Amino acid sequence: MLGNTLLVSLQGELHDGTAEQLHQNVAQRIAHSTATGVVIDISGVDIVDSFLARILADLASTACLLAARTVLAGMRPAVAITLVELGLTLPGLHTALDVDRARELLGQYTPADASSGAEDGP
Amino acid sequence: MLGNTLLVSLQGELHDGTAEQLHQNVAQRIAHSTATGVVIDISGVDIVDSFLARILADLASTACLLAARTVLAGMRPAVAITLVELGLTLPGLHTALDVDRARELLGQYTPADASSGAEDGP
Repeated sequence: MLGNTLLVSLQGELHDGTAEQLHQNVAQRIAHSTATGVVIDISGVDIVDSFLARILADLASTACLLAARTVLAGMRPAVAITLVELGLTLPGLHTALDVDRARELLGQYTPADASSGAEDGP
Repeated sequence: MLGNTLLVSLQGELHDGTAEQLHQNVAQRIAHSTATGVVIDISGVDIVDSFLARILADLASTACLLAARTVLAGMRPAVAITLVELGLTLPGLHTALDVDRARELLGQYTPADASSGAEDGP
């Protein structure tokens, strides 16, 4: 948790069982916290196939039912290209280049979160 | 009624007849009150099947026609997951984690309603 944002970081390959578990864990965490936003960081993921795409869409739908918005962060260019070639455009999922921008999109990023104490923020 | 909010609390299973009755009761209550918001509390509901999902969507549509906004409150994580797996994402229904947050969403929650008498509200 970062403020009101639940940060989910995916790494490597996800198997069916893991995905199912992830889905349940995220739902539980949202319901039992004050999370109003979920950021799924997939910068460590090399391949997004139709299975993972469905998992991501399901996660976002579940979060939405639990009153939290989901942003997908850190997608690699190669992954984006593959998704488009597969015709998987992740409808309903917002995306951001990295976790900070994802949190900005959720309106939950405060400059105090940043490691540098720069005061000339936007 | 809580202020201008009509609070509907569902418990256990809803049968066809009950659901029909509920639909009519809510419509009547909205029309004969000053309710501008409806909060449907489903924290006591273990299973939301396609039948109940349709009832909820119908209730929200009816409330909308009667100029009241509907928020679904207290959905359990397991219920959210099941709904997503069934492909029932309740389009058009707003959700909140609990009744207080639902009323905040409707803009009808005042700090005086809270058990604590905090005076540093927003």
